[in-house]
Amino acid sequence: MNFTFTDEQEYFREMLREFSLNELLPQYTKWDREKTHPRHLWKKLGELGVNGLRIPEEYGGSGADCVTTGIAAEEVGRGDFNLTYAVMLNALASEIITNHATDQLKKTWLPQIASGDKIVGVAITEPAAGTDAAGIRSTAVHKGDRYILNGEKSGISAATIGDAFIVFAKTDPNSGSKGISALVVPADAPGVECKGYDDMGNVPIGRGSIYLTDVEVPEENLIGLENNGFFQVMNGFDLSRLLIGLQCAGAAFQSIDETIEHVKTRQAFGRPLAKFQGVSFPIVIHYTQLELIKWQAYRGLWLRDNGKKHTKEASSVKWLGPKYAQEAIHECMLLNGHYAYTKEMPLEQRLRDVIGLEIGDGTAQANQMVIARELIGKEFRPY
Amino acid sequence: MNFTFTDEQEYFREMLREFSLNELLPQYTKWDREKTHPRHLWKKLGELGVNGLRIPEEYGGSGADCVTTGIAAEEVGRGDFNLTYAVMLNALASEIITNHATDQLKKTWLPQIASGDKIVGVAITEPAAGTDAAGIRSTAVHKGDRYILNGEKSGISAATIGDAFIVFAKTDPNSGSKGISALVVPADAPGVECKGYDDMGNVPIGRGSIYLTDVEVPEENLIGLENNGFFQVMNGFDLSRLLIGLQCAGAAFQSIDETIEHVKTRQAFGRPLAKFQGVSFPIVIHYTQLELIKWQAYRGLWLRDNGKKHTKEASSVKWLGPKYAQEAIHECMLLNGHYAYTKEMPLEQRLRDVIGLEIGDGTAQANQMVIARELIGKEFRPY
Amino acid sequence: MNFTFTDEQEYFREMLREFSLNELLPQYTKWDREKTHPRHLWKKLGELGVNGLRIPEEYGGSGADCVTTGIAAEEVGRGDFNLTYAVMLNALASEIITNHATDQLKKTWLPQIASGDKIVGVAITEPAAGTDAAGIRSTAVHKGDRYILNGEKSGISAATIGDAFIVFAKTDPNSGSKGISALVVPADAPGVECKGYDDMGNVPIGRGSIYLTDVEVPEENLIGLENNGFFQVMNGFDLSRLLIGLQCAGAAFQSIDETIEHVKTRQAFGRPLAKFQGVSFPIVIHYTQLELIKWQAYRGLWLRDNGKKHTKEASSVKWLGPKYAQEAIHECMLLNGHYAYTKEMPLEQRLRDVIGLEIGDGTAQANQMVIARELIGKEFRPY
Amino acid sequence: MNFTFTDEQEYFREMLREFSLNELLPQYTKWDREKTHPRHLWKKLGELGVNGLRIPEEYGGSGADCVTTGIAAEEVGRGDFNLTYAVMLNALASEIITNHATDQLKKTWLPQIASGDKIVGVAITEPAAGTDAAGIRSTAVHKGDRYILNGEKSGISAATIGDAFIVFAKTDPNSGSKGISALVVPADAPGVECKGYDDMGNVPIGRGSIYLTDVEVPEENLIGLENNGFFQVMNGFDLSRLLIGLQCAGAAFQSIDETIEHVKTRQAFGRPLAKFQGVSFPIVIHYTQLELIKWQAYRGLWLRDNGKKHTKEASSVKWLGPKYAQEAIHECMLLNGHYAYTKEMPLEQRLRDVIGLEIGDGTAQANQMVIARELIGKEFRPY
Repeated sequence: MNFTFTDEQEYFREMLREFSLNELLPQYTKWDREKTHPRHLWKKLGELGVNGLRIPEEYGGSGADCVTTGIAAEEVGRGDFNLTYAVMLNALASEIITNHATDQLKKTWLPQIASGDKIVGVAITEPAAGTDAAGIRSTAVHKGDRYILNGEKSGISAATIGDAFIVFAKTDPNSGSKGISALVVPADAPGVECKGYDDMGNVPIGRGSIYLTDVEVPEENLIGLENNGFFQVMNGFDLSRLLIGLQCAGAAFQSIDETIEHVKTRQAFGRPLAKFQGVSFPIVIHYTQLELIKWQAYRGLWLRDNGKKHTKEASSVKWLGPKYAQEAIHECMLLNGHYAYTKEMPLEQRLRDVIGLEIGDGTAQANQMVIARELIGKEFRPY
Repeated sequence: MNFTFTDEQEYFREMLREFSLNELLPQYTKWDREKTHPRHLWKKLGELGVNGLRIPEEYGGSGADCVTTGIAAEEVGRGDFNLTYAVMLNALASEIITNHATDQLKKTWLPQIASGDKIVGVAITEPAAGTDAAGIRSTAVHKGDRYILNGEKSGISAATIGDAFIVFAKTDPNSGSKGISALVVPADAPGVECKGYDDMGNVPIGRGSIYLTDVEVPEENLIGLENNGFFQVMNGFDLSRLLIGLQCAGAAFQSIDETIEHVKTRQAFGRPLAKFQGVSFPIVIHYTQLELIKWQAYRGLWLRDNGKKHTKEASSVKWLGPKYAQEAIHECMLLNGHYAYTKEMPLEQRLRDVIGLEIGDGTAQANQMVIARELIGKEFRPY
Repeated sequence: MNFTFTDEQEYFREMLREFSLNELLPQYTKWDREKTHPRHLWKKLGELGVNGLRIPEEYGGSGADCVTTGIAAEEVGRGDFNLTYAVMLNALASEIITNHATDQLKKTWLPQIASGDKIVGVAITEPAAGTDAAGIRSTAVHKGDRYILNGEKSGISAATIGDAFIVFAKTDPNSGSKGISALVVPADAPGVECKGYDDMGNVPIGRGSIYLTDVEVPEENLIGLENNGFFQVMNGFDLSRLLIGLQCAGAAFQSIDETIEHVKTRQAFGRPLAKFQGVSFPIVIHYTQLELIKWQAYRGLWLRDNGKKHTKEASSVKWLGPKYAQEAIHECMLLNGHYAYTKEMPLEQRLRDVIGLEIGDGTAQANQMVIARELIGKEFRPY
Repeated sequence: MNFTFTDEQEYFREMLREFSLNELLPQYTKWDREKTHPRHLWKKLGELGVNGLRIPEEYGGSGADCVTTGIAAEEVGRGDFNLTYAVMLNALASEIITNHATDQLKKTWLPQIASGDKIVGVAITEPAAGTDAAGIRSTAVHKGDRYILNGEKSGISAATIGDAFIVFAKTDPNSGSKGISALVVPADAPGVECKGYDDMGNVPIGRGSIYLTDVEVPEENLIGLENNGFFQVMNGFDLSRLLIGLQCAGAAFQSIDETIEHVKTRQAFGRPLAKFQGVSFPIVIHYTQLELIKWQAYRGLWLRDNGKKHTKEASSVKWLGPKYAQEAIHECMLLNGHYAYTKEMPLEQRLRDVIGLEIGDGTAQANQMVIARELIGKEFRPY
């Protein structure tokens, strides 16, 4: 048993925290207000090795383990929640490509993901298929040496900034989850239209819908086996769920640090706020909950690194990480008083941003259902 | 004992709900996105009798009771949370003027408040005096037949849309809460500068700071007795606290109604979401909490109408009304799924708007301190 | 609208509180430790008019309204939680008999219930039918001028102290809830065996199982119409649910009063505990929640008194009344420190007693299902 | 980083779980009902190596690490919560003696603690000094080669079953926490009177008061340096706090296991309870919270094993371990329905027992104050 990070990991954390607080945090609110995606910072993270953590060295990545990837999610989350997608989204897309795609696809996309030159999104959900992902209706018809895709993907992260998407579509429309395939679709392929949403948060990430109208891609763009896409990617979500917990925890820890500074100096009734238990106890409660979920996340990542089952852990982290973070940041806003309600302080944006990941990638209910299945048994599903 | 509203009140509620859902709700998100104050709707509310509820008939109001005012707060809150300031802020300002000001001031301001032609804000808090309101530093020096005001007011609702402000300032700088006076200061008086904030929510209400530099007002603008302002206004807050609870409850009830419609039709795993207890039970929980706090608010208003003590009730409503509403709306967002994260649905804005009143007009801690004082005793204050 | 009790009700409350604190509270823990039922106090309550509140004057009762009955539940709950059954159980049994039984049954039982000479229990639940009450299996076969009963009733309050029970049994075994009848069965009838449980709390109430083996009762003991028992009694539960909330609230309010006295005098670090917000805020939170549910209960009772629908209110009170009370009493124990863990202080017993009514008469889930049905619609039941 | 236990630890866990479920659990409720202390089982745990885990091999113990001790707390907690004192209390007393006492004292007491032949309690708290431990008033006067002790210790675990106590008393009455010493006082020394309480739970542990009247002990019974007792023992509490969390978690995990079996088989409305999310989700919530606090405890124990700071972790575990366990067991009771309210099922006793450790060894507030001090700074203490 050992609860320490390696020296290398500690160094990586320190380096990233410094970068995050000095380079990312000062401009965090700027991208939200200007509704722009800071691609130069995304690339900068690529230079720091963040984007290619889960990409093998031979494809331009650093081949780091999942625990190290978690450190990146947490520390980038302190400075700019939205840039944590350079960790989480890249890790998810990279793992799918690395584990299942042809060597050609790997060579085409992985080095550019690692460098930050390209962003590859993952497009699963549809207007009528959210939690119930097997219910998607988009189709990919194999015709000669090509696949023809049609359908509508909604709620897709990076829809407006992605250079390509791993699109999930039915290759066998009669087979439920066993008829789904994953294909790489370049954003500039004819027939692809990406439309961004005017969202509450995660603004620089450009969430939106992707409309596919007779989009043709070469059959080499198929990832893994036909009809096998659903099962190939599900495992990848156990990684992104763990990383999401840590990026939310990072944003919340930073909020708590800032709030502690505030309550130490701000006075009421002639004493610093920190001397009132009505102030210090909520800070203690949120800090402790975040510590608990942070370590659950690192334990889950370590289990993944060591080839052990971690589905229950991943679901608990996806459910409680954003929830605890949302509650902590919300409380920090209230403790900082009325000035925290303005867009000049990062707190209100962190709240808006974190809520995006309470919804995306599996609701609380979806994750509780996963844990119930593991704990009580598959045969006791509520439907 | 009687838990029914009068027929007149029921009719008023019905009329307002119809107006709120048909006229206000469809444009609720528009004013937020465009960052504009819909003065024409504010005036429209004036025509419907909303703005002058707490203004005597002789001064152009309807002289309604507090319970009826609460109905207005709740129903307008269903359609446009920000326009509830036409109930709550107007009631607060009107009561202060009606109860304490000279007849001249009443004639000048009350009819125009009632009609919606003028908005009068209330300016108490300062950068270094929030919860601890007696700690304000702005000064009003009596000089001849005028008062000269200097200071900075911050976190003031309607700072950018107000036509005048009831400003609290020290007339006796050495006397704490016993040296504070209230004066009407027109927004266009020389030396007054209003600067709006870029806020998370309540955008159309134009919260901001008011800078007072050698502002001169005639001594007739003094409200009530010199040095007595603090105590005159404190009682007014018991009204605004009760109304705030109801405007938040109104916004949350509307969110629940919309969410119930959603979960009845949206399907997952072949069944409507409403058939999952993981969906229906949270709705039940939030609905019930809101019912509880709603009736606490009406009880508080009735106590006020009948000249009975209602400080504890007002504080409980100010503390739990916004809190329960925030929690309910947040849950509704999650239950509505990813589309509710966009600005096309009103939920995300309701969440941002309601949070504004978790902070403004007394934090949870401030209100719990009030209740503790009433319940346990003044001598056990924590400072 | 009127949130005041009548002078008569206030006087009744005052009288009962005095009796409760002076006569009941000092011996409250005694009956638990000695595992005895203080029938003399039950009768004393009968003399004070408590037992026959819902019994018409012509049958020896006081014909009081439901609100007044609620006052009794709350005030007796302050002194002896278990003696509140003299309010709640009697009201339930009395209403069933008064509304549906023959005049002969009324004459036989109601005056003796009112005086406290007899206790009549209500026996519905069975080992395999709890929340799902329509699933009972006990049978009553109409044979000549008698009914022959067989079956097992479990979890029955007053099983060991009751003089008779209103037993629910299937008169038409093929018809679900539409084949259930209610019959009065004397505890000393041949074939009736009552077996008490060794319970966590509510010890003096003698909860237990009732075994019915070829029990014969005259057909006059049928209450209301054959096969109609289920629907006749369901309405009665809306009353007992509201009273349960108030008896729990009464016990919790008393706990809070005692705790406030403790924290005012007990010192830590040179200050009374009450000066720490970590102590005063929890008290405020629990007090406020109890106030909210108390008024919800009185509103529900008033609705019942006035012939208005109150099912949703009753379920909310049954669900949150015991829950808020349990949480409050638990917190009070912790705030009173280690001495409150002994049986010399009433707190630990109140906790054990109140938990009994978190389980009995409908779980939280059962009550949330009722509210969901009213709020969302019957067709969205989860089964 | 490594989140696995050693093979030896896993074997120890397996062996103990088997013993706990087969030998302890069937009789767990018996000792409570009979109000007896099963010393034979305490000795049996000694034979299994549980009692001497933190005692060096040379003194008859197994010299195990803290993590292994935690395993014992968790697994014994599954079978018999009260027998976990053989882990926790023994570990606390053993560490104090091992680390600070003379070799003679070690030889006298440690082998007998390890074997289970003797029980040594720890007596700190007094009627007027609980959370504020430095405020004790008992005195120990050094006179010749003896100490003369006077005072009253209250809320002492094992008061009626202990063979000796490590008593904390003022040796310098004018010096606060810097004037406290620890001495071994045999229970049968003249002038020692132990009086048990009639407690809500932890009955077989015999909590009570110890009255010291001119009790003489040889000066060799002093543990460590005179006036240094407070600081020597404080560190020991970081261990007992972590173990307490695990023993509570063990009892709660066992409750959840039993409840899962129940809801899989118990039917309502024609389906097993487990298929209702209103049932499965609460189980998931409590299970997850317990997992989080369990790993926080093992992390804390590992930090202690490795000589790293773990005060914050210990306080979080002491605060949330009993709290989460109490909530889980309470929910399990409700989910098991009315039969769980009887003393034939272990749930109601587990609830009563666990509450004892919500109070003992530091309240939630005391532990939050510790975390606040570490997190925000000593200078922001609320007093």
